Amino acid sequence: MTDTADQLSHALAHPAAALREPSLGSRLDPWVKSYAQRTAGMTTSEIRALFSVASRPEVVSLAGGMPYLSALPMDTVAATVAQMLATQGLTALQYGSGQGDPTLREQILEVMALEGISAHADDVMVTTGSQQALDLVTRIFIDPGDVVLAEAPSYVGALGVFASYQAEVAHVASDNDGLVPHALEERIRGLLASGKRIKFLYTVPNFHNPAGTTLSPQRRPQILEICQRHGILVLEDNPYGLLGFDGEPPAAMRSLSEDGVVYLGTFSKTFAPGLRVGWALAPHAVREKLVLANESAILCPSAYAQMTVSAYLATCDWKAQIKVYRELYRERRDAMIESLSARLPQASWTHPEGGFYVWLTLPEGLNAKAMLPRALTERVAYVPGTAFFADGTGHRNVRLSYCYPDPDRIREGVRRFAGVVQSELELLETFGPYDVTTGRAVRSRGVQSPAVDLS
Amino acid sequence: MTDTADQLSHALAHPAAALREPSLGSRLDPWVKSYAQRTAGMTTSEIRALFSVASRPEVVSLAGGMPYLSALPMDTVAATVAQMLATQGLTALQYGSGQGDPTLREQILEVMALEGISAHADDVMVTTGSQQALDLVTRIFIDPGDVVLAEAPSYVGALGVFASYQAEVAHVASDNDGLVPHALEERIRGLLASGKRIKFLYTVPNFHNPAGTTLSPQRRPQILEICQRHGILVLEDNPYGLLGFDGEPPAAMRSLSEDGVVYLGTFSKTFAPGLRVGWALAPHAVREKLVLANESAILCPSAYAQMTVSAYLATCDWKAQIKVYRELYRERRDAMIESLSARLPQASWTHPEGGFYVWLTLPEGLNAKAMLPRALTERVAYVPGTAFFADGTGHRNVRLSYCYPDPDRIREGVRRFAGVVQSELELLETFGPYDVTTGRAVRSRGVQSPAVDLS
Repeated sequence: MTDTADQLSHALAHPAAALREPSLGSRLDPWVKSYAQRTAGMTTSEIRALFSVASRPEVVSLAGGMPYLSALPMDTVAATVAQMLATQGLTALQYGSGQGDPTLREQILEVMALEGISAHADDVMVTTGSQQALDLVTRIFIDPGDVVLAEAPSYVGALGVFASYQAEVAHVASDNDGLVPHALEERIRGLLASGKRIKFLYTVPNFHNPAGTTLSPQRRPQILEICQRHGILVLEDNPYGLLGFDGEPPAAMRSLSEDGVVYLGTFSKTFAPGLRVGWALAPHAVREKLVLANESAILCPSAYAQMTVSAYLATCDWKAQIKVYRELYRERRDAMIESLSARLPQASWTHPEGGFYVWLTLPEGLNAKAMLPRALTERVAYVPGTAFFADGTGHRNVRLSYCYPDPDRIREGVRRFAGVVQSELELLETFGPYDVTTGRAVRSRGVQSPAVDLS
Repeated sequence: MTDTADQLSHALAHPAAALREPSLGSRLDPWVKSYAQRTAGMTTSEIRALFSVASRPEVVSLAGGMPYLSALPMDTVAATVAQMLATQGLTALQYGSGQGDPTLREQILEVMALEGISAHADDVMVTTGSQQALDLVTRIFIDPGDVVLAEAPSYVGALGVFASYQAEVAHVASDNDGLVPHALEERIRGLLASGKRIKFLYTVPNFHNPAGTTLSPQRRPQILEICQRHGILVLEDNPYGLLGFDGEPPAAMRSLSEDGVVYLGTFSKTFAPGLRVGWALAPHAVREKLVLANESAILCPSAYAQMTVSAYLATCDWKAQIKVYRELYRERRDAMIESLSARLPQASWTHPEGGFYVWLTLPEGLNAKAMLPRALTERVAYVPGTAFFADGTGHRNVRLSYCYPDPDRIREGVRRFAGVVQSELELLETFGPYDVTTGRAVRSRGVQSPAVDLS
């Protein structure tokens, strides 16, 4: 095993340790008895550990979700910022409103109009990335034990937030057309029958992370109707909606329901994530609560970052830049899908029409988490499917990102990945499947993880 | 009553409404039954309402805590940012570590060394302003009903955070030398005897907001010893420590105790608040929990804002800039104290040796909150003392800020303020004291609020 593989293997077994200096553990923590109950639910995700270990140049990382910023006109951005500071520096460096900059909130309306959303700037709140919007929505709605409905699989960062507020996540089946309406209806009825309190449905309808699928136009009103009938709020998280490869952006669920949806957007994927500027669009009364929660959490979002985004939107051709990103990611998606078709006929995968991710299902008997150290030995990284489930399933799944490496690197990464899968299959044929907990080969097939097949 | 006075009066009675568009109230909120229990504790502060209403040019605002950014060399800052983007733009605009930029964390050690703190960069975590650090510390320690000890009075933004996590705030008496050790000991014993679970002491030892006082060097080890003996963490919030007017900065409590203190710092007062860059320095195990909480809350702090601060610290003479701020605020403090002495012999006030605030106690029988609309009529704004207590006391108190208006404006503001107090005293002599709840004159003295005299 190479150093890299060894480190990543260690990182996945002890993810918190991988990100930080060695520690002597909580037995020496004098405050160990003082923590809140919710703190037990705060654990680092497999993705965070990967970020720090799999970034070595010799590894082809198909793991991260970093946008390809080299496509940005950096000189223009720098000039825009300098000009903004020269003319509005005193405002940009001062405290601002807890709800966010009024000019930027108006501009956000223009961005959302591309997805058919009609709204008032007064119902928009700016946040420190849309992750913070997720945190604040969860904060104002979730008491410990409340249920959040979420796709199977679901965005790992959202699952982390829900856990930190002691929510119970109930996964709902999804297929190539996204969330399955009758599965949602059944899930809700089952939960209500067992006396659960369901607060909201968390969904990424467009170019899903990690599934790569898009909720079909037919299902959108059906999902909304089911939720409305049961008094369940829809939390529509849409980081990738403008990064579709064909045709117009899908119409947002928020465009169909003003009162039943809290919509989350971000500039992280269409401009740059280092600014940490996202937003929530919410029904009026909910937005009031969100602003109070935002003021409590951070007083106000950064005027500096907001006015940087605002100046960029006002002076640069941001729609042309999004087109640049779309073409770039489409080419990379094609490279990945073509390579997978050529090299991995034993597996199945989704066919994303936008966004950053392909969701792959390994042949029966393989375990993506147990296989990862071997993949690192072959200098390729990915995220095991288990990261995207709150219930411990997803062992046969893999999330492959095509956003950051160039097409040649993607092809090389898939070549390495296919080689690892092939070796694993040969081992499987010889020795039988792995024990999920030890990562070692076992003779019995009893430990095989449940299949989650999206293809 | 002028328009301005009318608006501010309305803002104080209905603070949430003052910040936003008119709303039809929560009776029309379809989600009113869905909110978490904690959401009931989220209410807007009197200060936030003031920010939006008292910013008219004709009003002398002695209300806000905005640093005087015109003293910054804006051209230099703009050039520094442009240079940073030109050389490190791809990193500054990308996702970063949840703990914060390693270079900035090293530089933060240099800042804290000025207060006698010796630490390792690994125990520093960068946050979206120190308000977010307050939020995260509270998040990892507080279960509903847990007790937070805090000075009487205490920073309004911290009280808001504690309320949002359903903490019970127990105020501890403070005088001109800060928190009173024997009062702390008694308070702790009383709370423990009644079965309460005390999690931490929240304190602003230097140039206190709002009290303007500084914890004496003699009392610092006493406070730490009392807390250590009872297993209570100290949360040392220190936004103003480098803004003292005389001599060296006070030695931080953290310089005396490595394991018993979580220290919060910020660049909001020494550089600029619009960047939203603060930090927490915590015992190792606590810091690990804080980073998990930070990743859940926002994924990572803004690399863009952090690298802006980092470039500023590396290329500009930040210590000279702090000296500029100190001289500026000293002159304004002098203007305020001299004006108060000349015009308001009926009141008493604290004598801040740094920071932004004077804490004033009105003559007996006056009510700062009820008086505010009349003050606005005279075009002067302040924050009523009640904002700084969790228990509804502080009616006779006023926080006056001298950070933002220039000395002439401060003198004019105090002149107007003194005129209002004088008129109130004459009314009081004629009609008796005000009813606290209605703001109307009453004959009985029974409604007089408890005196909190810090002078």
